[in-house]
Formats: sequence, C-alpha cells, structure tokens
Amino acid sequence: MKRIVLAFSGGLDTSVALVWLRETYQCPVTAFIADVGQNEDLEAIGRRAEQLGADGVHILDLREEFARDYVFPMHRADARYEGQYLLGSPIARPLIAAAQIRVAEEVGADAVAHGCTGKGNCQARFELAYAALRPDIKIIVPWREWDLGGRTDLLAYADKRGIELDFSSGERPYSIDANLLHTCYEGEVLEDPAVAPPAGLRQRVRDIADTPEEPEILRIGFERGDPVTVNDDRLAPAELLYVLGEIGSRHGIGRLDMVENRINGIKTRTVSEAPAGTLLWHAHRAVQTLVLDPEVSALKEELAPRYARYVYNGLWFAPERQMLQAAIDFSQQDVTGEVTLELHRGNVQVLGRTSPNSRYDTSYATFEADNVFDQRDSSGWLRVNMVRFRLGRST
Amino acid sequence: MKRIVLAFSGGLDTSVALVWLRETYQCPVTAFIADVGQNEDLEAIGRRAEQLGADGVHILDLREEFARDYVFPMHRADARYEGQYLLGSPIARPLIAAAQIRVAEEVGADAVAHGCTGKGNCQARFELAYAALRPDIKIIVPWREWDLGGRTDLLAYADKRGIELDFSSGERPYSIDANLLHTCYEGEVLEDPAVAPPAGLRQRVRDIADTPEEPEILRIGFERGDPVTVNDDRLAPAELLYVLGEIGSRHGIGRLDMVENRINGIKTRTVSEAPAGTLLWHAHRAVQTLVLDPEVSALKEELAPRYARYVYNGLWFAPERQMLQAAIDFSQQDVTGEVTLELHRGNVQVLGRTSPNSRYDTSYATFEADNVFDQRDSSGWLRVNMVRFRLGRST
Amino acid sequence: MKRIVLAFSGGLDTSVALVWLRETYQCPVTAFIADVGQNEDLEAIGRRAEQLGADGVHILDLREEFARDYVFPMHRADARYEGQYLLGSPIARPLIAAAQIRVAEEVGADAVAHGCTGKGNCQARFELAYAALRPDIKIIVPWREWDLGGRTDLLAYADKRGIELDFSSGERPYSIDANLLHTCYEGEVLEDPAVAPPAGLRQRVRDIADTPEEPEILRIGFERGDPVTVNDDRLAPAELLYVLGEIGSRHGIGRLDMVENRINGIKTRTVSEAPAGTLLWHAHRAVQTLVLDPEVSALKEELAPRYARYVYNGLWFAPERQMLQAAIDFSQQDVTGEVTLELHRGNVQVLGRTSPNSRYDTSYATFEADNVFDQRDSSGWLRVNMVRFRLGRST
Amino acid sequence: MKRIVLAFSGGLDTSVALVWLRETYQCPVTAFIADVGQNEDLEAIGRRAEQLGADGVHILDLREEFARDYVFPMHRADARYEGQYLLGSPIARPLIAAAQIRVAEEVGADAVAHGCTGKGNCQARFELAYAALRPDIKIIVPWREWDLGGRTDLLAYADKRGIELDFSSGERPYSIDANLLHTCYEGEVLEDPAVAPPAGLRQRVRDIADTPEEPEILRIGFERGDPVTVNDDRLAPAELLYVLGEIGSRHGIGRLDMVENRINGIKTRTVSEAPAGTLLWHAHRAVQTLVLDPEVSALKEELAPRYARYVYNGLWFAPERQMLQAAIDFSQQDVTGEVTLELHRGNVQVLGRTSPNSRYDTSYATFEADNVFDQRDSSGWLRVNMVRFRLGRST
Repeated sequence: MKRIVLAFSGGLDTSVALVWLRETYQCPVTAFIADVGQNEDLEAIGRRAEQLGADGVHILDLREEFARDYVFPMHRADARYEGQYLLGSPIARPLIAAAQIRVAEEVGADAVAHGCTGKGNCQARFELAYAALRPDIKIIVPWREWDLGGRTDLLAYADKRGIELDFSSGERPYSIDANLLHTCYEGEVLEDPAVAPPAGLRQRVRDIADTPEEPEILRIGFERGDPVTVNDDRLAPAELLYVLGEIGSRHGIGRLDMVENRINGIKTRTVSEAPAGTLLWHAHRAVQTLVLDPEVSALKEELAPRYARYVYNGLWFAPERQMLQAAIDFSQQDVTGEVTLELHRGNVQVLGRTSPNSRYDTSYATFEADNVFDQRDSSGWLRVNMVRFRLGRST
Repeated sequence: MKRIVLAFSGGLDTSVALVWLRETYQCPVTAFIADVGQNEDLEAIGRRAEQLGADGVHILDLREEFARDYVFPMHRADARYEGQYLLGSPIARPLIAAAQIRVAEEVGADAVAHGCTGKGNCQARFELAYAALRPDIKIIVPWREWDLGGRTDLLAYADKRGIELDFSSGERPYSIDANLLHTCYEGEVLEDPAVAPPAGLRQRVRDIADTPEEPEILRIGFERGDPVTVNDDRLAPAELLYVLGEIGSRHGIGRLDMVENRINGIKTRTVSEAPAGTLLWHAHRAVQTLVLDPEVSALKEELAPRYARYVYNGLWFAPERQMLQAAIDFSQQDVTGEVTLELHRGNVQVLGRTSPNSRYDTSYATFEADNVFDQRDSSGWLRVNMVRFRLGRST
Repeated sequence: MKRIVLAFSGGLDTSVALVWLRETYQCPVTAFIADVGQNEDLEAIGRRAEQLGADGVHILDLREEFARDYVFPMHRADARYEGQYLLGSPIARPLIAAAQIRVAEEVGADAVAHGCTGKGNCQARFELAYAALRPDIKIIVPWREWDLGGRTDLLAYADKRGIELDFSSGERPYSIDANLLHTCYEGEVLEDPAVAPPAGLRQRVRDIADTPEEPEILRIGFERGDPVTVNDDRLAPAELLYVLGEIGSRHGIGRLDMVENRINGIKTRTVSEAPAGTLLWHAHRAVQTLVLDPEVSALKEELAPRYARYVYNGLWFAPERQMLQAAIDFSQQDVTGEVTLELHRGNVQVLGRTSPNSRYDTSYATFEADNVFDQRDSSGWLRVNMVRFRLGRST
Repeated sequence: MKRIVLAFSGGLDTSVALVWLRETYQCPVTAFIADVGQNEDLEAIGRRAEQLGADGVHILDLREEFARDYVFPMHRADARYEGQYLLGSPIARPLIAAAQIRVAEEVGADAVAHGCTGKGNCQARFELAYAALRPDIKIIVPWREWDLGGRTDLLAYADKRGIELDFSSGERPYSIDANLLHTCYEGEVLEDPAVAPPAGLRQRVRDIADTPEEPEILRIGFERGDPVTVNDDRLAPAELLYVLGEIGSRHGIGRLDMVENRINGIKTRTVSEAPAGTLLWHAHRAVQTLVLDPEVSALKEELAPRYARYVYNGLWFAPERQMLQAAIDFSQQDVTGEVTLELHRGNVQVLGRTSPNSRYDTSYATFEADNVFDQRDSSGWLRVNMVRFRLGRST
C-alpha cells in the first residue's frame, strides 16, 4: 500500500480508523473531508485529522455539485424508497466517493478507506461507487478488518493511543447523518421499533407545536424538471436547497419515522428530517402533473420504485441507474413552470400550478358544454374497451 | 327495452335522467340507491325518485361490503394513483355497479343506466364493471344520448317537465362525490389549476387552524393485511372506517389538491378529503414494513402503481386486477400487528409498530456488537457484487 | 374538406375508397403510395390510382428511412409482441403515416384517409400516428363511414362505378401485408385457429423440405446496436435488410403461426414470415449478450414487452415509446461486434460472437484456477444474501 | 458437526469432497443421490459413495415431484432467462436441495454440503434453498474451503488418498448437467465464446442433418396450464416430460448456444439441449393464447422475465417467487385445451389449437361482415385515445 485516502468525518469511528490505518498499513493516510452541507466546523475537523497524524487534509466543498448533479436528477424521478423515504442519505454517498477517488488520483493513492460498519448501507454505497469509477483501486474497511467489536472497544483503543475524545458525538445515543437535504438518525435509542424516539431526537425540523401559527405561501419555479427559483428569486442549486431547508424546517415539514429494509436485507428503524427534499418532492410533482403525457406519467410511476431502489442500494454510478435516468430525463424536457404551496404546521398543500407547456386544457376538462370533445365518442371508446369481456360468448 | 335500472343519486343529473329515460324508452325505470356511507338522507332521495316516476326504488346498504370487499383489499396494495391519490372515488364505483346488476337481475331488467357525463371517469368505471359482470346487459347513458348540453339545458328540461328543484346541490359550483372513505370535489370553481380552491370547499377535514392543539394517540390493529381494531376495540369493517374517518377529520388529516390524468387522458383538477384512507395507508405500511421480506416489499412497490391504475381505470372486475390481487394477498398472510400513530394538525406520525410475525430482528439491526452477523461476510458480499464492474479488464 | 391524401395500396379496399372519397367529399383526392420494400409494381399501382381519378399520385421510396429510423431502433429493444411476434407489420405503419402527413402538407391537404377496416390494428396505427404528428388534421376512414358491409358489397360498388377488377388480389382468400422485414397473412382461410393454413399460404420463406441440405454460415456485424455488415460487406440499412431477407428465406427461417391479441382486444390468427427480422433478432442478442452489464440486461428484458406493446399498439410517435427508447439507446452504446450464425433448415444457431467491448472475461468465466476471483468471497456473498431468511429467529 | 449430508453426483468433485469432508470434519458423511431423470446408473454411483466411505447412501427418485411441482409451475409462467434460456438446470436445484434437507432431518444431520465451485450458479441455488427451508442448518462448501485450486489439484488429492478414477467424466473437457428436461454443457472447450462448440458436444438433441426427413405431428393437451396428454394418452408428469424429450430429441429440437449472465455477474457460455422444455414452451403458449384475456396476457409478459430471473437466481423457495406464482397460477385457471404441433428438422410449428375456454371469437375476428361489432365504435375509441395528443392546443 502506497497511500490511503480516508473519508474522514471527525467522529469516533473515523478518528480511530485514521490511527488504525497508519499503524496497520504503515503508510501515509490522507484525510478527505466533504462539505455536503452538513453544517459542521470542517476546519476544526481537519485540524483533528492532522492531530491524528493525517498526511494531508483535503476539504472539498461539494455542495453545488451535490445539488446540481445528484439531488436534482434524483428528484426528477420523484424517487421514494419503499414508498416514503426521500433518499437524503444515499444520494450523498456516491458524490463523496467520487470526490474521494479524485483526491486519491491527485495524491497518488492506491487505496481508499471509509469508516462505515459492516452491517449498514453506507459501506455498500461507498464501495460500489469506488468500484464503478475505479475498479482497480484497493478498498480498505477497518470495521471489517479490526478486532474492535463496538463503541466500548473503540473508546478503549482511543484511550490507549492517546486519542482525545472531547467531541460531543461521543455521548449521543444514536448516529446521525446530515447534508443539505436532510438529517437522519439511526441506532441505539431507536432500535426498538415499538417505542417512540426520545423527545430530543430532533435537530432540524421544528416540533409541530413550535411552528408558526400562520401559514406561509411559497412559490417554486422549475425548468426542465429542476427547481430554479424560490419566490421569484433565481438561486443556484445549493443555495436553493438551503433556502428550502430553512423554510421547511420552520414549518415542521419532512419528518419521517420508518422501518426500512437495508441493502443487506436487515430491517432497521430510522428517523429522518428532510425539509428541503419534502418541499421539492411536492413542488416537482405539482408542476410535472400539468405537463406530462398520461402514459409517460404512468410509465414513470412504475419505474420510480426501481430507480429509488437503485439509489438506495448504492448503484448511482451503475449503468442501470443511468439507463433509467435517460428515460426520466427524456420525460422532463417540458417540465417547466411554477407551483404555489401553502406551508402550515407540518403540512404542504399545493394551492396552484402553472406551466407554459401545460397539457391541462380547460376546454377538455370542463364539465360545462365545450366544443372540443364529443361525448358520444365515449360510447365507442367504452364499447371497444368492453370487447374483451364479451369474447367467447358469440360463437 | 323491458325495464331499466338507474343508479339514482337524487342530484340534478339523475333526476332529469329518470324522467328522460321513461319518456325516451317508454318503459318502467327502477331507481337504485346505494348507501356507501355518503351520509345523505337516502329515504328522502328515494321519495324523490318516486315523485319522478320511478317504478320501484331499491335502497341497499352496501357499507359493510364496501369496506370489507373493496376498500380493504385495495389497501392491502397500498395503492396510490399517480403517487398520491388514495382512490376513494374509483373504489366505490364497481361496488355500486355490481349491486345495480343484482337489482337488475332481481327486477328482471334488461338495461342499466347511470347519470355520469361522457367526459369523466365514472362512466368508464360503471360501464366496465357492468360489462365484466354481465356482458350482455344493455347500457344506457343519457348524457351521451340526449341533446342537453350542460346544466342550463338540464334546468330548462326540468322546468318544462315540472321537476321540482329544491335540492341545494343545484347551486353548488362544483360536483361532489362522497363515501365512507372520502369526499372529493371537481369542476367549475376548481377548473383553473393555478387558483386555490375557495375557502368553503371543505366538508369533511377540518382546516388545520381549527384542529385540536393537543395531539391524539391512535392505535390500529391488523390481521392478514386488514385493519381489525382501533384502540383495542374490535370493529366491523364499515364501522372501523367510520371511526377512522371521524378521528382523522378532527385532526385535519387527508386533504389533497391534485391535477390528475383521467382515464380518457384529459387532465382534471380535484380536491379530495380522505381522512380514513390516509390513516389506513400510514397504518398499514407501518405494520407491513415489520413483516414483509425485503424482496417481496420491492416487488410490491413496483406492482402498486399498476394496481392503482387498474382501480382508477375502472378495472376492478377485470382479470388483471384480480391477478395482481392474488400476488398482493399472498404477501399479506403475515401482516398482523399493531401500529401507534400520533395525529396532530394534519400530520400522521408513526410512533411505534409491533407484530408477532416481525422480521425486525434487533440482534441484526443493532450497530452494537452482536453474535449473529459476521461483518467480514460483507467483504465477500460486496466484492462479488462488484465483479460486474471489473469484467472485461482482466483479459 | 379541401383535399384528401389517401394511403393507396392498389387493392380492392383502397380502390373503392378512392372513388368513394371523391364522390362523398366532392374534393380532390391525392393518392400516396409508399415503397417499404413490399416488392410490387408501384408504378402500375400509381396508374391505377390515376385511372380511378386520383388528383396527383405520390410514390415515395421509404425503404432507407424504414430500415434506419424504424426497424433498427426497434431491434435495439429486442422487441417481441406476446413473446414471439417480431412486429414486422406495426413498425411500417407509423413510417407510412408520417410520410403521408408530409405529402398532405406538401399538397395542401387538410385530411388524410386510409383503407383499413374498423376492426383491425392498422386503423389505430395509422390514426394514432396522424394524431401524434398533426393533431389538427382531419382523418377519414371510409370503412367506418360507408354502408358497404364486406367484400361482396365492395365488388358490387366497384361494378356499379365501372371500377375494373383485374387485380389478382381480388381472389386471394386472405389478406397480406408485406415489407422489407416480413410478410404476414390474416383472415378468411386462417380464421379457424384449430386448422392449419393451406399449403399455398407461403410467399417468402421456403418450406423446410425445400431448403438447402447444407448449412450456410453467416456473419453480421453491429455498431452501437445496429447491424452494419453482412459477411464483412458494409451495407446501407435497407440493403442489409434485403440481403438478410434473401438469405433467411432460402433457409426457411422466420415463419410463425400465432394467435395474437389485437389492440382492441379481439383475438386474431396470423401467419407471418420474417426472415430478416428473425436473423436480426438472433444476431443482435448474441452480440449484445457479450457487452451488456447484467443489471442493464435484466432491466432491458423487463422493459422489452412493454416497448413491444407500444409498437404493436401504434404508439411509435407517442412520448412513452420515445421515453423507453431513450433508455434502450443508452444501453446500446457499446453494442458493437460480430456474430457468426449457422443457418440450416429453418434453424438459426449462434456459433460465435465477438466484441471489442466484451465483458465476457475468460479469467472470471473459467472453472479452472484463476487469479482474479477469490471463491471464498462467495461465502460472504451468499451468507449476506441469506440474512433475510434468518430474520426474526434470533430474538 | 454431528453429521453431514452431501449431495453426491459421483463425479470427481463430489468424490473428492466426500473424502475431504470425512477427513476435515471428522464426522460421518451421508451421501444423497437424486434421480431427476439424468439417466445415469445411480446404483453404481451409490456403490462408489460407499467405497469412498459414505456412512449411508440415500437414493431418491424425485422425477415425479420434479415434473409436477417444479417444471410445471415454472412453465405456467413461460419463463425464459434473458429471453431464451428455458431454465432446465436452475429448476432442478431447489428440488434436490429440498430433498437433501429432508434426508438431513431423517438421519439427524446438522450440516449439508454440495460439490459446486465458488464461481458458478449452482452454489447459490443450493444454498439459498437450504437457507430458505432450514435457516439454521450448517452449510459446508468444500470448494470454498479447501486449498485445491482446480482439476489437477483434485486429481492429485484423489491419487494421494487412493481414490479410484475410472469414471469417464474425468476426461470430458466440459461439465454437464442433465435431467428430464434438458442437458447443458459449460466450461473448458466452450470458454471462448467466439468459437463454435466441438462436434461431439451433443448428447441429446440430434444434429439437424440426422433428423427424419418427414415431419411428425404431435398433439399435447393441457389442463389449468399444465400438460396432461400427448397424442390423447394421459401421462403422469414425469412420463410426459420423458416422452416429449424423446420426441423432441429425434427431431433435433431445443438446442441453444448462449452467453448468459451468471448470478454473480460473470458472463459464461453455455450450450443447452432442452427438447422437452422447448416443446412444452411452444405448446403452452399456443393454448394459452386462445384463453387469456389480453390485459392478463400483457401483465404476464411483463412479469415473466422477473420470474425467470428469480428461478435462475436460486430463489425458488423465496417468497417473491411464490408471490409471482400466485399471480401466474391465477391466470392459468382456464388454460385448458389442446395444441397440434408439426416437428421437423429442429423446428416446432404450431398448426392449430383448441380450448373449451377459448376467447377466440370468430364473429369478432372475421374481416367479413359480422353482427357483433359495430365498426363505427372504433371512431369514438380512437378519437378518445387521441385526446392526449390534442391537449394544450385548444386554450
């Protein structure tokens, strides 16, 4: 091993991993820190990496790329895993992995490492991305190699190596993942799916009781399937997500308590808070529904669960995801328009939507008299549609 | 034509239709009135039918059948049309059509009629059900035969025939469909999808501002995919739906403003209020997610949009819906358990779920040390899953 | 009506239609004759149109466009309707309809007409193409307007108008459709699906008994999913189809006797002879299978029946077909290579296939010792895949 | 380990495995030999197992169970993997695994073993079946444990232990799998997909050149989707498959040379000979096509590739396969009837089909005048189907 690039978050696991990798592989370890809008002091995390012996620290601001090249394409598909989950965590992993590979190429590393355990989803998302982008790179996963069995072992290891443990996450009885789009919680206090999460497990989305008494009206504009304006302000992708996140959080929007099937089949209980994702989902559908041909809409509905599963399963860079994306992007060419939403006490209500490409046609829609649709045509239409129920009875 | 059975709602359209059918076909017309929980005075509607010259009035209480044989099987599929709509209206039509056919057989009629227009969905739902059940019965659709072009013409016709017009629906600037599961609104004031519905367009679900300040905890129990208890009370299907509807309404749950693609491809704007359906949807998923095998879950997700479309398109009695139902019912054998929901200000939050058949396995789920899962297995698992990204590079 | 463009085949139906349209609509009728490789004397058919009073005859050679823009994209999808039928007839209709629309625009016509009956598939394929391309053009369908009930009525009409009936097709007890790709037979002597077709019903594919005793080796080369060479000769699309057709015919390849579901649900019995299509299908799959990622392959398999149905149903120009095409074309980027086939007595046997983009990797494929795949990885792989069968048993 | 049951084929791999298991695990090893119609001297194979030290030999005749409970349900689905492969090998594995589990329970074994390598499909099919049926049973896979790297190592090991090597398979330059349904060949001489298989690689299906000059007429009768008669003789399932296999072989039917994607993503080249499966496939489709509702047919087409993949991937006992089976079996209720086939020189031509439940309705199908279908209805039908192409243009 010449050099390893470690995806470093500054938490207990990657801190121990950094030291363990240096010791075990006897080679320089570069720390890579990705800014995906998780709202942490990344400079401080970088200093921690240096203290732990990192040979170089690379902090990359990936927020714009995240919003534009990952979140937006995914939202074109209206993807929800198992009917509900807006994929806030899985959509960030391939981005981080891709940037990590770029860092590895830059610093001449022949291996990459991450701090995820061997039971969860993130290992798969990191590693399948690595392999799809650079099939020959070596992948090191401390959690699947070392003899440390859990948090207690890690703390003991840290203590023995003199690793300082002043980071507050040390005491949090659950794990957190956060980015521009969402925050999610898993583990420990959430492990009994019969029991409600503790009151404090909430960082981002206000409790309904604390939301404003008055509703807020929000307008979001789309071009070719992607959001581009908020209340008439044209915003760059990352800023747009940030602004939606702030607004949604204030109104208590996007909290979900879910049991989900991990990639490896294990069921897990997760709480997620996705204010920006939830607003985007509702807004996109509302504009889209004016524009899409009905059969395109039906096809897209049937493909969406599969697309969602690809993303969840870490297959962002796999050709099957790209193949579906080609179909989805085709469908989005005309999805331009604006939606007006009312946000109130956790609820997102669509009030109106407009599009220059609208196929909503009042002359057809109306139940009043019109001069475009001859109702008698429906008799033939239905009689032909009934033919199959009549076959085999006339002979 | 020997005798016609008309599905009679007591509104303007079916009132005019009753008179028009008698005049046009010169045969007795039996009025059929279905109780699907729409909460109207059906006896009064029956008297109106008699006044209009109905030769026999049949009022059938279909609520139990509706809940048990239509709503419950559909909810086993978690069906949502175009990702959102809980199909409250389409699920009632085949039931009404089937009962109307039974009445026709009973009274010796050779024809059935309905009062739906030739531009909407309901015509298809009624007629495809008629044809699937009794391919040889004659179907008469006044709206596609007469020369009356709209409401004004109907009112003039009514006036000329001396049909009394004291029913309040005469002035409502939108049409309503209601049953145990939902109320929905369409037409006129809703026809501009850019404009919010008027404040008064709300019968069932309270305005968020008027909902209780305190959340309510609700427990729903399921057996084999169907709801059977509410807060430990075992309730018959229709009563269960009624109770859920009352609770959901109080908390402002289940309002949706949507543009949807009609069966005939026309886009239409609908507002629906589905308190019972919304609660049922969340509750069913929460229990189900503990029990279903992950691959079964994925398969079910992909089939659900198609199932929903079948129901929306009036294909309840068509064999393709039944074929999918066979698969869905197979998946529901173990979906027994209970969910705890918190209802607050329009929001449904799952707090916990339990099942005697749960596949949620804490030993596997935990990120703490366990003795059932060897994390090193994940290395082989992922390496094999990466093989395809490496092919063609070693030769 | 200013002017009508009629798709004219020279058969009984369109001959009568030409006269009937002139009489009924009292406007000039332009005859449009498409050359799709049906191997008829189109000049003679054009003269017939003139004799019948056509105001202008447009004969267009569409063979190159047919092969390149219709047949090839469809074959990228490996489309088979109901698991067998290679769609030789449906793929030509949208092409003819599109060219007819171009003629209509050129000659300033406001209406188009075809000679298909109101019970078959072709009416839908023509008209849905017209409507997708020019939603405002008027569509006239003599068979659904006139009072002529069948062949006898048509002959009587022709006799009365002095239409000469020397075309041999007048006596053929079945209808034929032919183009570069296939010939198919339907109707009359084929109408009893229990009875074998008469011996003479065969134009293109030799009887197995008459095929050469010796097999023939054929090589077909592909680029990006499309065939480009035959036995190393680079051929233009139409010529390539022609050559394949000749070779396949000689060896008795591509005959199919099938009962199929028409678009309108009616079951019909068809015999088709598709020598070129059959060879193309086998050849394309053989090259493709070397190249496609396994998950892309699986996705493509699942989408193919739907794509086939779109084509069958006349939805070539509908956005849902184009949406799937975008996905399929994405998958074909690397489908370049060559296949060697053995043709013998109706059989197509793949002997070998090569591709510069092959993912067939001998180091992985071999059951001999290798240095790329550690068999022990399969233990972890399978143990993780088994996890879901073990859940719920450890708690 | 108390006792191991080994699936024993008598070949080199399982012979070595038997000895190795005894040595390595120091416990009794029971040999299990399944008769799935592979046409070998199973008694002799049993004696070999005894010579190698097996503590008990169980030979089970599984042919009837194979045909009835595995082959027939699979053929109801018309399953083809990657569009072509009739799954002759994968369908036998779960049967053998299930019987092996029964033997294990009978003899009180706590472990099962097989002789498949760690790179192929069969390991997955055996082990996923074991795990689905008995999640707690121990699974031992010598090929993934021992240090023997290939055939040479095995031969050396055998020599050292004094294992006699007089079985002819020792010299075969490819591996074979055979059962009632098919024979397939893989490995070594087939490993270059560009090169045709050697002339001798053919056990079951006659070379086209050697098939009878005269065609043979064959009639197969079905009940509820399953074959029950051959030329009017009612045959038990296994015998029926045997008879079809004999007839098909004589006429050179069912040979396929294919590159396929293994479960683990590796591409492999296989030659298979499936005379019975090929006849069954054509026969079943021919009867089915008379009976199935068109929409059921379309749904079945779309589900079939997924079903095939489940079977290929070793998921026979997984609930997702069973869930799809429930849908498929629903569709087969009326698939009763008879087909007449002509077999000639490798070709299967359908000549006719009949069914008491036929939906083929001559009155509808005919292009002659009829009195059941009003062609004018098609105008309304098509005009409504075109509405979506016209939307957005009238306002």
